[in-house]
Amino acid sequence: MKRHVYLAMKTLEEAKDLFFSRFGAHLRTGPEEIPTEESLGRVTALPVFARISTPTYHSAAMDGIAVRAEETYGTTERNPRILKAGEEALWINTGQAMPEGFNAVIMVEKIHQIDESRLEIRSPAYPWQHVRKVGEDIVATQLLLPQNHRIRPFDVGAMISAGVVSLRVWRRPKVAVIPTGSELIHLRDLKDPSQLGKGRIVEYNSQILAAMVRECGAVPDVQDIVPDQEEHIRAALERALDSGAHIVLINAGSSAGSKDYTAHIIEEMGEVLVHGVAMMPGKPTILGCVKEKPVVGNPGYTVSSILSFQQFVQPLLHTLQGSRMPVTKTIKVQPSRDLPSKLGIEEFVRVNIGRVGDKTVATPLPRAAGSITTLTRAEGIIRIPSLSEGVSQDEEVEAELLVSEEEINNTVVVIGSHDITIDLLADEVRRRGHNLRISSGNVGSLGGLMALRKGTCHMAGSHLLDIETGEYNLSYIRRYLKGLKVSVFHLVLRDQGLIVAKGNPKGIKSIEDLTRDGVIFVNRQGGSGTRVLFDYKLGQLGIKADMIGGYDHEEFTHMAVAVDVLSGAADCGVGIYAAAKALDLDFIPMEREQYDLVFPSQVLDHEAIRRVLETIRSQEFKDRVADLGGYDPARSGELWQEIG
Amino acid sequence: MKRHVYLAMKTLEEAKDLFFSRFGAHLRTGPEEIPTEESLGRVTALPVFARISTPTYHSAAMDGIAVRAEETYGTTERNPRILKAGEEALWINTGQAMPEGFNAVIMVEKIHQIDESRLEIRSPAYPWQHVRKVGEDIVATQLLLPQNHRIRPFDVGAMISAGVVSLRVWRRPKVAVIPTGSELIHLRDLKDPSQLGKGRIVEYNSQILAAMVRECGAVPDVQDIVPDQEEHIRAALERALDSGAHIVLINAGSSAGSKDYTAHIIEEMGEVLVHGVAMMPGKPTILGCVKEKPVVGNPGYTVSSILSFQQFVQPLLHTLQGSRMPVTKTIKVQPSRDLPSKLGIEEFVRVNIGRVGDKTVATPLPRAAGSITTLTRAEGIIRIPSLSEGVSQDEEVEAELLVSEEEINNTVVVIGSHDITIDLLADEVRRRGHNLRISSGNVGSLGGLMALRKGTCHMAGSHLLDIETGEYNLSYIRRYLKGLKVSVFHLVLRDQGLIVAKGNPKGIKSIEDLTRDGVIFVNRQGGSGTRVLFDYKLGQLGIKADMIGGYDHEEFTHMAVAVDVLSGAADCGVGIYAAAKALDLDFIPMEREQYDLVFPSQVLDHEAIRRVLETIRSQEFKDRVADLGGYDPARSGELWQEIG
Repeated sequence: MKRHVYLAMKTLEEAKDLFFSRFGAHLRTGPEEIPTEESLGRVTALPVFARISTPTYHSAAMDGIAVRAEETYGTTERNPRILKAGEEALWINTGQAMPEGFNAVIMVEKIHQIDESRLEIRSPAYPWQHVRKVGEDIVATQLLLPQNHRIRPFDVGAMISAGVVSLRVWRRPKVAVIPTGSELIHLRDLKDPSQLGKGRIVEYNSQILAAMVRECGAVPDVQDIVPDQEEHIRAALERALDSGAHIVLINAGSSAGSKDYTAHIIEEMGEVLVHGVAMMPGKPTILGCVKEKPVVGNPGYTVSSILSFQQFVQPLLHTLQGSRMPVTKTIKVQPSRDLPSKLGIEEFVRVNIGRVGDKTVATPLPRAAGSITTLTRAEGIIRIPSLSEGVSQDEEVEAELLVSEEEINNTVVVIGSHDITIDLLADEVRRRGHNLRISSGNVGSLGGLMALRKGTCHMAGSHLLDIETGEYNLSYIRRYLKGLKVSVFHLVLRDQGLIVAKGNPKGIKSIEDLTRDGVIFVNRQGGSGTRVLFDYKLGQLGIKADMIGGYDHEEFTHMAVAVDVLSGAADCGVGIYAAAKALDLDFIPMEREQYDLVFPSQVLDHEAIRRVLETIRSQEFKDRVADLGGYDPARSGELWQEIG
Repeated sequence: MKRHVYLAMKTLEEAKDLFFSRFGAHLRTGPEEIPTEESLGRVTALPVFARISTPTYHSAAMDGIAVRAEETYGTTERNPRILKAGEEALWINTGQAMPEGFNAVIMVEKIHQIDESRLEIRSPAYPWQHVRKVGEDIVATQLLLPQNHRIRPFDVGAMISAGVVSLRVWRRPKVAVIPTGSELIHLRDLKDPSQLGKGRIVEYNSQILAAMVRECGAVPDVQDIVPDQEEHIRAALERALDSGAHIVLINAGSSAGSKDYTAHIIEEMGEVLVHGVAMMPGKPTILGCVKEKPVVGNPGYTVSSILSFQQFVQPLLHTLQGSRMPVTKTIKVQPSRDLPSKLGIEEFVRVNIGRVGDKTVATPLPRAAGSITTLTRAEGIIRIPSLSEGVSQDEEVEAELLVSEEEINNTVVVIGSHDITIDLLADEVRRRGHNLRISSGNVGSLGGLMALRKGTCHMAGSHLLDIETGEYNLSYIRRYLKGLKVSVFHLVLRDQGLIVAKGNPKGIKSIEDLTRDGVIFVNRQGGSGTRVLFDYKLGQLGIKADMIGGYDHEEFTHMAVAVDVLSGAADCGVGIYAAAKALDLDFIPMEREQYDLVFPSQVLDHEAIRRVLETIRSQEFKDRVADLGGYDPARSGELWQEIG
């Protein structure tokens, strides 16, 4: 079977040098003439000069009367003067043309109207007083806007006022996006998403790329999906090049798999400049040139696809339009844990960011390049340079922001056990109109308490059962958070149990059934409250771990457990009712447990935290929680204990 | 004659309180359902939940072979294993569905292919190795996006991948803009701008307002121009309210002139909340309510119109869409001179900003509310609070940025005498692709030297004639810049002379003619190079100042002088040929003078300054200067003298 290999992989900097030295401003899309009224946001291709002066005539700069200044000379407070309305003084409003022969305006506030025809003034006017003279603002032939200037609302006004009815701007570059993949199905061909056939994927990378192209001020042209066949991809590329596209993106087929034809086709039709960039995600990027045009093999994994676009296509689109890349804002952050990274690869680690006390903490999200939610959930990206083996949690490093700094300041960081009601809380807080983000890191209950100790979160979700006392959380807090003053609030009571496939084909009724031959179990990781509870139940029943097949197979979230059951990777897992319900699985209740939120007491007077607690106590939140099923919100938001 | 008065004027804060307490989120425009593909930049009206899980099936996370993990157990480096291709091992590419019964992937790099049918491995696979499991990224029912979230490119992707084909977003608010004014003419009705009739103005405020509405994500609806007649304005307002507009802007008629009907009409049809806001520009703002909708009387002067919109309408548009106002970036600046301001008025002073040495200097632009170029040319705005009488040049104050901070860093500040070739230089620098702004303040030659001494500019334009030696600039520099090391470069030689009306109706041939009766002269301000030259010429001729009518009438720029001549305010003025040419006036040459640029020597090694000098020396620049007429660029960019 024929397989391809990457050409010599290039560092990100080398790849950029090769690409941008080949494609730059000389590829400019050329100017086009557009009406001034439609020019907002466009970039001037030529300087813009005033065609007429403004004001175009002498006009009153104040409401009042127009006078001949000479006729007012000598007027004083003690020697006032009466002007004859209609002859020596003409009423005039701001902006009105000065009557012929009149050369000054006296403000309405300075006039004493004796009667209809007599107006008294008490000081003289000097020539051109309160008069806007021709050309005072803009003089014909004057430079209004230089070349390569992005047009703002008031630039539009300045041009129109100066008689510029149309202007030359850089044409918007057209970017053809060719989605390839036999497994892909177009959104519009999908009547019912839940009926998606096995092995089929809704194509969405092209829509992300199109949106990014639009954000650069360029015009996307998303082509039909092309199956993984060399001749079809070649034909699509030819069509795109002939269609007037300035740049062509082929997504994907840029890797080294047997169906990855992109590099081969570009090589055949033109030249491959780079195949493989030492960045992660984004490695399988191809940068090529066909018919003097840039052709980019954009990676298939979503996050790779986005990051590769941002490094290569986005800067080129700005260059082509004479505009500048928006500056990426960065802030200093402290990683919540060490971030090892491979030497020789520039890595882009997506992180949640929040300000906790005087620290700005960055908690890494999973590194999976196929996981779009690692971008939608992230507040920033830490770039680890290729010559670094990673950053340690003691280092302050720069993070590029994906949200505004204001949003960071308004982010409440919750770390610990995951529960679906936390998502619901995040939404409810915003529904109530609060400008707050809730950023959640799922590391299990004990991980949450550790985060509190390290000062890397505002609150921790915890449901740790003390198997000796039967009480939740308190003994763990006393043990692990010595010296820290915390307040424990109830969030919910929730049903824990066994998650089994729909219809319960293996007939599992209780934990004892897990010891049966042919029953495969999936567990939660050590340190999670669910694991503590499960081990406690095993202890009560006298069941040993090695009696359960799959006991060592650990997942980190309820949903991951449910997914294992849904997909048949396991017959049964331990988790909450809401997870079973979400995936339409069956559920055997085991325990109604207590899930609490633990706050460092010092944050309780923060505005944001008060709003979160208010929301938890609201009837709307409780109703939504109750609707999920498997939850009891009766005591949601109650302060249970203060410790320390 | 009937005139209106402002209702009790409100402070900006009072006005905002009155307006925003009346109009807020409850006026929300309601949700609309749109296809996910078109949702970029919109704001969610409801939370978005995943409809399907992704991945939707188990798939290979690497290129390689799919295997049954159990069949690889026991494999080691010393005890390799041969798998039968097509039976025990199936070739698979990243993203492809795992074949039924297979549960792990071995990477292609770890496989030794003996022949077509035999594949050797040297380590075992564990179950689910390199497999992306169903729901690994997104699980059906999971919260994807909360309410009131602005949709980014990757949010579009996340929604499509999760089977969300459409979603509810806040409807874009519609803003009706009613331009009023009998003097206004629509751009499209203006065949030839230079033929604009006297007393007519091209209407452009509505286009600025429309552009600002668009930038807020809302939809402008610019109505036809309405003449200044009460019944017409009332009818237009009624039409706008009935057309489904969420907000109506009437521009203008908001002042206290006799034709300012807006307040009266709003009062009659509804309620005036505020008439007159203690802000400058922007005072004649009316905030009203008709049929439960906000109706804003927006001021007529352009800058007032813009600032009033930004204070009241812009925040409301964001509230209505559930989005947040973009945060205005500010930087600390030091005013280049005192900025007095009226107590009781919040003032918005437009300023040029540049970094000179370690100072960030803000040089005020004219305060005229009708001058759109005070915004197009500005880099920022200093807000002087109503309780302040101004800021002094020793104070560091905040300035709101109108350009990016990067642009500030790339701004070259030139202060001093004005010359048209400086505008040309600003354009030519950008045409050459440099990311540089040239920001120029016109204060005359001596003012420029003073700015150098104060360290508030990078270069000063100067053409000061030493009437004793006949030499330009050097003696002034030695006198005024003692202790400062400066380098003087030639910019141009240029023709100074008398500017007279087209056809020279007064038959002026030389300076002597200015002493004639009936000849009105316009002068330049003291300290300007042109004034020095003119006074020198008078001295040579033995003419005294009081022999010239209008000698005391001073203007600050060549163009202002030319405008006075064009408009008939003067018969003759002193200035450069280019100014006469720009306005198609006649010109009587008097002297070819030397116009130099003076740099502090320490800035000469700055990248930006080097580029400016390079540009001045370029043939392109010299050719463009020569084309203007009245200039000699032969020595442009030559270093003439180093002093100090």
